[in-house]
Amino acid sequence: MNYGMIRYILGRILIVEAILLGLPVFVGFLYRESWTNILSFLATIAILLVVGVPLSWKAPKKTAFYAREGFSIVALAWFLMSFFGALPFFFSSAIPSLVDAFFETASGFTTTGASILTEIESLPNSILFWRSFTHLIGGMGVLIFALAILPQVGPDSVHLMKAESPGPSFGKLMAKVSHSARILYIIYLSMTGILTLLLIIGKMPVFDAVLHAFGAAGTGGFSLKNASIGYYENAYFEVVLGVGMILFGVNFNLYYMTLMRQGKSALKSEELHWYLAFIVLSIGIISIDVFHRYENIPMMLKDVFFTVSSIITTTGYATKDFNQWPLTSHVILLLLMFCGAMAGSTGGGIKVSRVAIYLKTSLQEIRHMISPNRKLPVKFDRKMIDTPLLRGVSFYFMTYTLVFAVCMVIVSLDAPNFVTAFSAVAATINNIGPGLDMVGPTGNYSSFSDLSKLTLIIAMIAGRLEIFPVLVLLSSRTWRKT
Amino acid sequence: MNYGMIRYILGRILIVEAILLGLPVFVGFLYRESWTNILSFLATIAILLVVGVPLSWKAPKKTAFYAREGFSIVALAWFLMSFFGALPFFFSSAIPSLVDAFFETASGFTTTGASILTEIESLPNSILFWRSFTHLIGGMGVLIFALAILPQVGPDSVHLMKAESPGPSFGKLMAKVSHSARILYIIYLSMTGILTLLLIIGKMPVFDAVLHAFGAAGTGGFSLKNASIGYYENAYFEVVLGVGMILFGVNFNLYYMTLMRQGKSALKSEELHWYLAFIVLSIGIISIDVFHRYENIPMMLKDVFFTVSSIITTTGYATKDFNQWPLTSHVILLLLMFCGAMAGSTGGGIKVSRVAIYLKTSLQEIRHMISPNRKLPVKFDRKMIDTPLLRGVSFYFMTYTLVFAVCMVIVSLDAPNFVTAFSAVAATINNIGPGLDMVGPTGNYSSFSDLSKLTLIIAMIAGRLEIFPVLVLLSSRTWRKT
Repeated sequence: MNYGMIRYILGRILIVEAILLGLPVFVGFLYRESWTNILSFLATIAILLVVGVPLSWKAPKKTAFYAREGFSIVALAWFLMSFFGALPFFFSSAIPSLVDAFFETASGFTTTGASILTEIESLPNSILFWRSFTHLIGGMGVLIFALAILPQVGPDSVHLMKAESPGPSFGKLMAKVSHSARILYIIYLSMTGILTLLLIIGKMPVFDAVLHAFGAAGTGGFSLKNASIGYYENAYFEVVLGVGMILFGVNFNLYYMTLMRQGKSALKSEELHWYLAFIVLSIGIISIDVFHRYENIPMMLKDVFFTVSSIITTTGYATKDFNQWPLTSHVILLLLMFCGAMAGSTGGGIKVSRVAIYLKTSLQEIRHMISPNRKLPVKFDRKMIDTPLLRGVSFYFMTYTLVFAVCMVIVSLDAPNFVTAFSAVAATINNIGPGLDMVGPTGNYSSFSDLSKLTLIIAMIAGRLEIFPVLVLLSSRTWRKT
Repeated sequence: MNYGMIRYILGRILIVEAILLGLPVFVGFLYRESWTNILSFLATIAILLVVGVPLSWKAPKKTAFYAREGFSIVALAWFLMSFFGALPFFFSSAIPSLVDAFFETASGFTTTGASILTEIESLPNSILFWRSFTHLIGGMGVLIFALAILPQVGPDSVHLMKAESPGPSFGKLMAKVSHSARILYIIYLSMTGILTLLLIIGKMPVFDAVLHAFGAAGTGGFSLKNASIGYYENAYFEVVLGVGMILFGVNFNLYYMTLMRQGKSALKSEELHWYLAFIVLSIGIISIDVFHRYENIPMMLKDVFFTVSSIITTTGYATKDFNQWPLTSHVILLLLMFCGAMAGSTGGGIKVSRVAIYLKTSLQEIRHMISPNRKLPVKFDRKMIDTPLLRGVSFYFMTYTLVFAVCMVIVSLDAPNFVTAFSAVAATINNIGPGLDMVGPTGNYSSFSDLSKLTLIIAMIAGRLEIFPVLVLLSSRTWRKT
């Protein structure tokens, strides 16, 4: 283990967080907030610098860097940023419990959007801004992690990059992490800007528009209203955000390709077709299921579209209390929660490409049973899926299930019922936010014990980082001297 | 597709069922039951012969026989035996709806033990006998399927036989299906006989003892009492049946090996160790969870032991209404429902060996991430697990999940709530019987719609036959002429 590198990089990440905390300070001044608020941010910045600067003072001599270092840094970065990022909430008494503040911030950075707050609207603007800003930052982190770091781990990486990157431009995109990061950030921030503008054009207050665009961009889902997007009762906002969420759930490689004038081959992406098919199919089934509850079909379609968009992209914005919908709709929404958005997007879940590969290999396996002598390769995006990738995809599923089961047992210790425990774990490990029953769109996570909250924090970060980095971090073998 | 062979073998299977129906006729005469009852069995026998004899009159010329023929026959046999076996219930008006009777019989033959009956004790003895006898027959069928047919399918079979059969005797055991079938039946029926005797020694009425031994042997779970084993309030019965169920959840290969004086290597079976570890661990966790509800520790241990034994072996006998237990116990029991018993036993579920391989490969994959250059093979039972087997195990998991999700969507159309829908599918696909809430130990499946019942019948048979045969049967490609 190259401790020097880990120290150095984490130090630099904390300094970046200190710089980012300048923005809520600015917001505090803008809205002439009390000094308590502004000081709680400044104190956090000071702490981050006191910790970060010495850590990154001296560059390490050994720069050798392997997968385990990479994974440990990524996982630690998410934990540390969440922990230090929680301090302003705690110092300003916006969230009096440190565990709660930690939960809220981890939920922000992982773009989960699960909240322990019961009353949001009374919070000062600087705090609300920081809360939503973590979504934007988290989304940027996820894009770099998924599109620039993961693919470099090695040929038998458990991840999906080879399968999901169509066309020859992939190598170019990934040639330099810093270069690709810059391009991804430009795409990401431009899309966020356009979304903000569209909301402002529809007469959403500027501050609200910025924060809701942050939440949609990171597919996070924190709102500054207790009733989430439902507060506005405005169909235009719902359609704009609904479309916006779906666009942020698309693999950013495809946007990059479109930018490079390869729009045609981007449109041919098989994962994109599955993603759109899942969306259309779900809207169809749920519409039939809730049809008798609506008198107005466009109204129903709007509600169903927004909910499906919010859930499959794992955002978690709410307009309708889908807890009130019938059971079949619940089951479809739960399946979407597990499916999640496209790989290489800011969305969470198992990812559409993995689900599609599961479906295709299962089908192929049945065909193979029927005709054992036929060669039946599994193709995705017109490319053969090779054994290491298939291995990776199936191990992912097993490990995911295992982590899910362990979290479920711990959370069941103080959950009021099965649906709450199950959907709380599902909503955090898949980075959605609201689940069903007690943690449904109108509920929240405040009544869980600290043990459950810490477990759910681990679930959020594990889910965000495709499970393995967090398990690598938790393994004693990682910390052994070599 | 060799239709001739399918016709011929299915015909013979139906004739065997006609012969087996002689026993309930005998029971009917023994208890001097009404002619309506006895005639409903005789009519069924006649129908079976009218269908079965012409089908199997002429042996087919082509005897070529491939995996798809094998799988189709096995799946069809379970459906047809369940359908024809349902007729006595229907003719005698014991179960007035044909779909209900089909459900009850499929539940019997698949050794699930899920019931649509609300009032059992008033049924005539011949009907009760046939109902429980299907468990014994189903258990025999499963043993042959899992231990004699599956391993012959080919080297990249999705199944576990290579991993789970320790020692060199495996080839010998499997050399001749008919030979091994005879030995397996002797072991199986002797164990059933001993269990019956032990129950009679404890002063259970002979008829009750025989039927409950049938239910334990097939790990089915049909009882002739509405309150299941709880009716007797007898700790001796509970301990005897608790131990009995665990023994029927053991891989029958191990008994064969013990018979061949290889008891020592049978005890070294890794799957056995996992199985016992899961049992002990679950009893430990649930005991802590329900501790405060008991004043008497031996009483508590007895209840927990019986419930764990009944659930992990997927039998489904009940003494305590575990619906009343706290949530953590529910989650543990649900995990046991999915885990199931050992491969090569009469128990259902995913099987201990598969779960153990999932756990070991996931762990190994994390180690591999930490040290990418180390060769880290996965071993089970001191043998390397090769790629085809690993592939099979992981495809199994994916396909299982897929079938589960589809059944869940259909059942959700008329289930009253999420827990009922989820646990109904879990309890049928894993061949357990009772689930939670509406289908809990004191409830039953009668209020589901016919569509849900038929879906659950498919789930039971698919689960019983390790998923793939039923999917092969449902694929149009199977039925194409070649």
